[in-house]
Amino acid sequence: MKEKLVIALGGNALQSGKDEPTAEAQLAVVRKTCKYIAEISESGYEVAVVHGNGPQVGRIVMASEAAKDVTPAMPFDVCGAMSQGYIGYHIQQCLKYALNKTNRNIPVVTVATQMIVEENDPAFQNPTKPIGPFYSEAEAKVLQEEKGYTMKEDAGRGWRRVVASPLPRKIVEIDAVKELWDHAIVITCGGGGIPVLERPDGSLEGTAAVIDKDFAAELLAEQVDADILMILTEVEKVAINFNKPNQQDLEQISLAEAAQYMEEGHFAPGSMLPKVEAAMRFVRAFPQKRAIITSLDKAVEALEGKTGTVLTFN
Amino acid sequence: MKEKLVIALGGNALQSGKDEPTAEAQLAVVRKTCKYIAEISESGYEVAVVHGNGPQVGRIVMASEAAKDVTPAMPFDVCGAMSQGYIGYHIQQCLKYALNKTNRNIPVVTVATQMIVEENDPAFQNPTKPIGPFYSEAEAKVLQEEKGYTMKEDAGRGWRRVVASPLPRKIVEIDAVKELWDHAIVITCGGGGIPVLERPDGSLEGTAAVIDKDFAAELLAEQVDADILMILTEVEKVAINFNKPNQQDLEQISLAEAAQYMEEGHFAPGSMLPKVEAAMRFVRAFPQKRAIITSLDKAVEALEGKTGTVLTFN
Repeated sequence: MKEKLVIALGGNALQSGKDEPTAEAQLAVVRKTCKYIAEISESGYEVAVVHGNGPQVGRIVMASEAAKDVTPAMPFDVCGAMSQGYIGYHIQQCLKYALNKTNRNIPVVTVATQMIVEENDPAFQNPTKPIGPFYSEAEAKVLQEEKGYTMKEDAGRGWRRVVASPLPRKIVEIDAVKELWDHAIVITCGGGGIPVLERPDGSLEGTAAVIDKDFAAELLAEQVDADILMILTEVEKVAINFNKPNQQDLEQISLAEAAQYMEEGHFAPGSMLPKVEAAMRFVRAFPQKRAIITSLDKAVEALEGKTGTVLTFN
Repeated sequence: MKEKLVIALGGNALQSGKDEPTAEAQLAVVRKTCKYIAEISESGYEVAVVHGNGPQVGRIVMASEAAKDVTPAMPFDVCGAMSQGYIGYHIQQCLKYALNKTNRNIPVVTVATQMIVEENDPAFQNPTKPIGPFYSEAEAKVLQEEKGYTMKEDAGRGWRRVVASPLPRKIVEIDAVKELWDHAIVITCGGGGIPVLERPDGSLEGTAAVIDKDFAAELLAEQVDADILMILTEVEKVAINFNKPNQQDLEQISLAEAAQYMEEGHFAPGSMLPKVEAAMRFVRAFPQKRAIITSLDKAVEALEGKTGTVLTFN
């Protein structure tokens, strides 16, 4: 029996900061990323892939708003769905090729994925994630009144819409993902999933929210009973005192140690903190299993126990 | 054993000509459409859904080009992938709800789908499908030189990019679609599929092309060994002498009759013609099976043999 692995891809797996933010540049980065994912698959794991969509959905919103006199602007949930199509297409195209190169004919498939969030999630009381273009104060007031957006002044650069970042609660398409698991590499929960609210009559309604893709990957790992949650980022190991003279890389940490480091403020919010929190959630739910945080190019070595930061219950 | 049914949804199933072309208006139309699809499923068929994307991908291209000073414009294949995410998300959200209302807990899942087209398809010699915004002649010349676009003057309204409409040859994600078939209603080949070319090394490369969704649905029906190809459009029956005093609606036609009517020019190119051609392809490939062309609201009755136009081999 192969071990089941859920991979969460960070932003650096999809685009390089150096390049123009074009689809062509993304495709070149995704091509490299997929060689590593194919290696992971080849080394003996059943894999699913979750990816972020921050810069991509941001640009889709920007384009949609900038073009609104030409064609009506798209709601945020639809922009999220579009980003899943965009990024998923690139990954499935490149990953299929990388797998074929090693004579492994595994289907790769992107599933458009809705993620239920809860209206009473405290995050909705305090939206913090800026999305889309900058506006003048006057424009911001109009959007606030006409569309009910929450607008905030952003460090002197103008006004922006902010949306909540609630916790992911339920993967709507989980049954289909489970069906596909044994036969394919599934790309799912892209960008954390398309945020939807569940209405009393059972209907779903898209909402404007940013879902953390590491938390989404963790929820997926729980629901498919994965053996390992692997969160890939820019660094090989999690560190305490990061970027300080006394930086110390971590190889294996327990849930208690992780909680202590977190409490001591070692992990940056919006960066390493959600990754460590997602890893903690996973081993708390499955005390016999492990979460690994490492970089894409070290993933196979980390799975062999040679590098990376492994988080375990004890 | 339930019969297998591939449904091709026409543009009227996704948006109403009366409304603003907003995502909200589309969602309202899709909600109605999905009640009909749920009825079809409930009446005893295993269903897959193929949809068009003409107006939607057109607007995505428009927005992308209009916003190109804000964020780089997207290539056409990526716009197609985005439209699959957008439309698929709406259908899966509404169809799941419509199924739940009848206590049928069937997963509904959108699969991002690439469609291989052939570079030597004669359509590439004569691109005919206009996409995106209008340009001045000077702008058109620049695009032609810098990006290699084929630009054509469009009935005095300005210059537009035109792309080819090649035949769909191979559904890249067909294995995943087959795996899902028994367990879920799959939304696949949206907009005819994301057009890709297969390179000698086996890699796929997105290309700018418009694939007919009826031909894509037909190919899907062949590949999943469907019992029925059902093409849904605005009219209840195919007619000869359409919109003339001697219009005659057709109930059951053979392949030979269809070929004769086609030869006589009864079916409008870009409208009924590709639907009849797709239906003909299907019964030519599977002489024991049938293709039905009818309207969404008459689909269940047509399956019962009470209305619609049925095309059979003999």
